[in-house]
Amino acid sequence: MRIIVDAMSGDNAPVEIIKGAVAARAEYGVDITLVGDTEIINKVMAENTLSDDGIKIVNSESVITMEDNPICVVKSKKNSSMAIAFSLLRDGEGDAVVSAGNTGAILTGASLILKKIKGIKRAAIGAIIPLDKPMLLLDSGANTDNQPEYLQQFAIMGYIYMRNIFGIKDPKVALINNGSETTKGTEAYVLANELLRNTEGINFIGNIEGRDVPSGVCDVIVADGFTGNIILKLCEGFGSYMSRTLKNIFKQNIMTKIGALMVMRNIKALKKQLDHTEYGGAPLLGVSAPVIKAHGSSNAKAIKNAVHQASVFAETGITQEIIKTMEKNKKQTAEAAE
Amino acid sequence: MRIIVDAMSGDNAPVEIIKGAVAARAEYGVDITLVGDTEIINKVMAENTLSDDGIKIVNSESVITMEDNPICVVKSKKNSSMAIAFSLLRDGEGDAVVSAGNTGAILTGASLILKKIKGIKRAAIGAIIPLDKPMLLLDSGANTDNQPEYLQQFAIMGYIYMRNIFGIKDPKVALINNGSETTKGTEAYVLANELLRNTEGINFIGNIEGRDVPSGVCDVIVADGFTGNIILKLCEGFGSYMSRTLKNIFKQNIMTKIGALMVMRNIKALKKQLDHTEYGGAPLLGVSAPVIKAHGSSNAKAIKNAVHQASVFAETGITQEIIKTMEKNKKQTAEAAE
Repeated sequence: MRIIVDAMSGDNAPVEIIKGAVAARAEYGVDITLVGDTEIINKVMAENTLSDDGIKIVNSESVITMEDNPICVVKSKKNSSMAIAFSLLRDGEGDAVVSAGNTGAILTGASLILKKIKGIKRAAIGAIIPLDKPMLLLDSGANTDNQPEYLQQFAIMGYIYMRNIFGIKDPKVALINNGSETTKGTEAYVLANELLRNTEGINFIGNIEGRDVPSGVCDVIVADGFTGNIILKLCEGFGSYMSRTLKNIFKQNIMTKIGALMVMRNIKALKKQLDHTEYGGAPLLGVSAPVIKAHGSSNAKAIKNAVHQASVFAETGITQEIIKTMEKNKKQTAEAAE
Repeated sequence: MRIIVDAMSGDNAPVEIIKGAVAARAEYGVDITLVGDTEIINKVMAENTLSDDGIKIVNSESVITMEDNPICVVKSKKNSSMAIAFSLLRDGEGDAVVSAGNTGAILTGASLILKKIKGIKRAAIGAIIPLDKPMLLLDSGANTDNQPEYLQQFAIMGYIYMRNIFGIKDPKVALINNGSETTKGTEAYVLANELLRNTEGINFIGNIEGRDVPSGVCDVIVADGFTGNIILKLCEGFGSYMSRTLKNIFKQNIMTKIGALMVMRNIKALKKQLDHTEYGGAPLLGVSAPVIKAHGSSNAKAIKNAVHQASVFAETGITQEIIKTMEKNKKQTAEAAE
């Protein structure tokens, strides 16, 4: 198992990325290919006395920034760390890619260098929402287009992902909506609900409303990328709101500070639970090989977890299962049409 | 000032509705018209020894349930408490309506009995999100249609509402989106952003993302009804999640219970802040007279606050200001076209 890590992208690149990748090697035994400026990487390794055991370095000549137009990944910045990482994965030089870079560029690079899975209309970014239990929200922002068939494909891919990654036997799949009735929502959502009810092999439990999200009523939340992105960021915002509010409650006076000591252990457990870095990153689903998009602000721990997540993503054969499911569905649709 | 209260609609009707209306009379001195089954209302008043000072009762013969098709308000249930309340308001027999009934029926009844304001394409339900400070989210679920011009009108109405109700000098208006850049979002949102940037007399601060909602960066959040409804209910869900989580933290053992005592006062203040019943209800904006939709689960306190909110809504002349603004905008558009 070899994970290809884009060492140059992200707010804390390259130091935190390299540290995280080396830590993943030590903890999980996966081989690592670091893609980036060889000189810089070697310097970081030396300065932080990091072991190069199981670490391969592949040189790149540029970096895609957050401001770059995503299409540069296959045009002016073909020699960037991100573009080279995808090319290595395409050429069989590794099993998965981890990048904390520009989301649009990851999506464009993965779709154009790795290609989408046959039959998949749109790739989706699946984000783990860490509340009482992990839930996969997809699409969480890959595209704002919104067709019933895309939503159906997100449901199929999310179901397969959660069964394999978290070992949930029969993950519950729900469609976010503005009401639980099947007639609720925009035209696309009404049609998507109907499609999902008639999709075999996913455990579709129907529409859920916004208030059901924090209750953990399902394992997979299906949304278009516009709505999904707003939900994901609202959840992140509430995480910060909650930390801020608890801090305000406890810092008031000596009594409340004593109170804080009494519950410190539980507060810490809650913070760990709400910490998205615990889950590493967001899988890109629908492309022909495993890609994990780590958060732009990832630190070493987040990268370590993202590398681990990428190795499980590759190991469990999720991509192959999606390919097979798409082939089976195509065959069934063709037979039904005859 | 006379507020017409639909006494028969809502989960806790008629007892809590009547109690709340009578309490509002006592606290704010507004006259009240209770619409409902006279016999039942009189019985509730007697059983709870409620004062009938300033209270008028108008009889109705049926109730619209949550399961009823909204259109019944102008068809089979014209003699319902809700339909009669709207008719009284239309005929000048009061200054505003409060109802905790079926949202679809309130919307249909208000649009067809009271009529929409000239030039307004869609009425919107504005919901107060009670976090660090009150923010008005609209549309929070009146309709799932989604046109740039509707979003522009929601912005104008929301701005006028917040300036009058909360006395904010120049309310900040933001468009929810999946990114802060003007090019972000669906086609309708990209066009809406452009329209809003060119709308005079509203303090448009641009797009905001989901994570900005709990930070209170603005006073008015503009959204289509589908997205707005998901945001509103997600906020409600997080309120419950937070209460549940705090309870779990504090109930663990004797030490954490002592800790709870130390911060009880602050927790209570937080609960009050997050309590949507403090704000009474959601204004229906874009119809020709003030209507407040109280939460279906409203208790007496929520109804009391909703009645007060309705009286301020009527008193400040928000509806007249929206009418004037629409006339002015129409004139300007006509002049620009010449």
